[in-house]
Amino acid sequence: MSNLKNMLDKSRQIIDFVIAENMPQNAVKKALANYKPQKQLHIIAIGKAAFTMATAALDFFVQNNIKVVNCVIITKYGHSQNFSTSSPVSTVSTKNSNMSSVKIFEAGHPISDENTIIATDYCINLAKTFTEDDELLFLVSGGGSALFEKPFVSLKIIQDITAQLLASGANIVDINIIRKRLSQVKAGRFAEIVAPAKIFAIVLSDVLGDSLESIASGPTTADSYTAEDALYLLKKYNIKLADKSYILQETPKNIDNVKTAVIGSVNTLCQSVAKISQKLGYTPHILTTGLNCEAAEAGRFLGAIAKDTQLGRNSFAKPCVIIAGGETVVTVKGKGKGGRNQELAFAAAQAISNLPNTVIFSLGSDGTDGPTDAAGGIITGETLDKLQKLEINFDEVLAQNDSYNALKQVDGLIITGPTGTNVNDVSVVICE
Amino acid sequence: MSNLKNMLDKSRQIIDFVIAENMPQNAVKKALANYKPQKQLHIIAIGKAAFTMATAALDFFVQNNIKVVNCVIITKYGHSQNFSTSSPVSTVSTKNSNMSSVKIFEAGHPISDENTIIATDYCINLAKTFTEDDELLFLVSGGGSALFEKPFVSLKIIQDITAQLLASGANIVDINIIRKRLSQVKAGRFAEIVAPAKIFAIVLSDVLGDSLESIASGPTTADSYTAEDALYLLKKYNIKLADKSYILQETPKNIDNVKTAVIGSVNTLCQSVAKISQKLGYTPHILTTGLNCEAAEAGRFLGAIAKDTQLGRNSFAKPCVIIAGGETVVTVKGKGKGGRNQELAFAAAQAISNLPNTVIFSLGSDGTDGPTDAAGGIITGETLDKLQKLEINFDEVLAQNDSYNALKQVDGLIITGPTGTNVNDVSVVICE
Repeated sequence: MSNLKNMLDKSRQIIDFVIAENMPQNAVKKALANYKPQKQLHIIAIGKAAFTMATAALDFFVQNNIKVVNCVIITKYGHSQNFSTSSPVSTVSTKNSNMSSVKIFEAGHPISDENTIIATDYCINLAKTFTEDDELLFLVSGGGSALFEKPFVSLKIIQDITAQLLASGANIVDINIIRKRLSQVKAGRFAEIVAPAKIFAIVLSDVLGDSLESIASGPTTADSYTAEDALYLLKKYNIKLADKSYILQETPKNIDNVKTAVIGSVNTLCQSVAKISQKLGYTPHILTTGLNCEAAEAGRFLGAIAKDTQLGRNSFAKPCVIIAGGETVVTVKGKGKGGRNQELAFAAAQAISNLPNTVIFSLGSDGTDGPTDAAGGIITGETLDKLQKLEINFDEVLAQNDSYNALKQVDGLIITGPTGTNVNDVSVVICE
Repeated sequence: MSNLKNMLDKSRQIIDFVIAENMPQNAVKKALANYKPQKQLHIIAIGKAAFTMATAALDFFVQNNIKVVNCVIITKYGHSQNFSTSSPVSTVSTKNSNMSSVKIFEAGHPISDENTIIATDYCINLAKTFTEDDELLFLVSGGGSALFEKPFVSLKIIQDITAQLLASGANIVDINIIRKRLSQVKAGRFAEIVAPAKIFAIVLSDVLGDSLESIASGPTTADSYTAEDALYLLKKYNIKLADKSYILQETPKNIDNVKTAVIGSVNTLCQSVAKISQKLGYTPHILTTGLNCEAAEAGRFLGAIAKDTQLGRNSFAKPCVIIAGGETVVTVKGKGKGGRNQELAFAAAQAISNLPNTVIFSLGSDGTDGPTDAAGGIITGETLDKLQKLEINFDEVLAQNDSYNALKQVDGLIITGPTGTNVNDVSVVICE
């Protein structure tokens, strides 16, 4: 086996280890350890990791003989480990002797669809029945912004605004400041519906800096942004919105029925890469866990670092692994297919062209990068040559945001399927 | 004195040390140590560091009692330490007992002007007189592409193409592949004019990877690019050029009258930062010496690294200095004033907002960053707040490429004046 093949094997080991170590099961159980429900317990889980988090919680309650009255899961299509059927809602029997079934909804992501509304309506109606004799365990993970949504306006308007914001290169924080104001459940409004019942929220973070307002657009967190802020952003990104009345309606500023625990984050993701890299014989270096620049430019920067590591022109001695976690953005200019991780990895290929023993990959921990079936991209010093032999023009691929189709032809896609977790992205340079 | 002021003081010490240590005098003398002219010696020096390099060479020849028949300097306006007068050419008397005067031409940069043609014509006519009884010491530094130029086409066409290329975000390598074909002196053509005389070229590198063809567009280096390559780039960057006949005329591919020594480079620049940083008590880390991505995105990336260094979320322990050398690009979108170093530093301000003991600066070693009087930009954790108090919008400044005017109002400009050297840029993060 050539050394490059060996390195690609190790990359796969890193990817597998990192996803396994960042699955939320253990962290959910740890967060529940001191949780003693006093009232009738309900569970609602939303986000790309909702299924994994909910089943971990149900396991915990079975073991501790605690009765769960209702359990509702809302997740992305394909993210409930084949328990979901093709109908909008699946009812699955459980091992919990105290409850017979779990409701599973699958819906659209990153853009909400009609099943999102059906699922969210179900949760709103359930929450409206709550009295002081009920309490809610609310399990939140990334993707919740799209998956848990009942807008004041039509879904078409929400979809249109989201598409406008994504195309303008707005980051996830700014996107949600605007979008949450148009929602009946976001920006703390769901906590108001659940009241007077109390809520314990366990949040698996996919937002840089762990801002509770941002994760899933903060359904149970008071909104610190005002109508004025939202109007400013509409103007900044040049977003077209005919009726601004819901933007002007103020969001909850004080919420007192919620306790929150945050589990997992991009920090733990980076630490996991460092840990397995060390075991594989590499010296790990974490540059940042807060990467938020343009994906392609981050790729060029990491490519330059890789090149100089190989040429002995920087401070990183081989063999080493260089790690950058976070969430880059793609300002869409072309009509190609890709995701931020695929674009980042692809863009790094030029700098390391023809260098031996160099691998760079970028991975979305949820297993779905952009609207593709790939979790990210992986390239080597041979990638650019392979592309050229196929007459694929490097600059043209970037101009068209078409990293998926290009990487596909040079074995450059990382395919994991939906992973069950969602703690953001990590980009990794490996040099021997 | 507050600690931040103290850190800004240290930044200034780093900048002063780095420029001083990268002045070309000693390196020129070292390169000349084994040089024994056999014929009548002429000196032509071109580029932003031409004056410093030529005076170092003259010093050396005085000390070694070697006669110099002619010495011609072509440099940027203001870059001959006030020896130049306002006329296109200044004749300055020297200490060299064997020659009475030095011709100094100052001309336009980054865009050539009429004085460029006058100066280059002078050199061409001089070179045409050379026989086998002459030899040339050719001192080359960055900026030579603009400063040493006699095009086949009108200067207006050259200026127009250069402006189109800069605005399209083309890197310096690609810009020169096209521009050099339109020139009577570039791409090895000057070596043909000097023949049969021999040339010893000493080159102060400002091009990543030290490609001789690229530095000053390689007046004495065979061109490895063909007409086909140039046509491809014209199309890629969508450059308008009515008459393509000179693009099609092939450049010299074999040159046998030149010996070349390369001195200085962005590597030594980064090493100098590391050296002085260590003396000041910081642990230095060089990330890369080949940074070539968009300036603002590099700034965001370095800002994220600085933030996580402060928050203990990466592998860099404080106090430390993180160094990235190279040459970023700015894809001009707005009508503001700035340069790549100013834009990089400015863009880093958001990530480190409100963090104590954090300074980021980016410096062009030649002392002139873009068409401004600044050498670069410097920002701290207080910069964004200061901008907001002045109602200067961060995103708007970047959209307008107006970093110069914004930084000017928050003491964020690095002013050195023309330094006499030119070994590319360095960006520096300082965390205590």
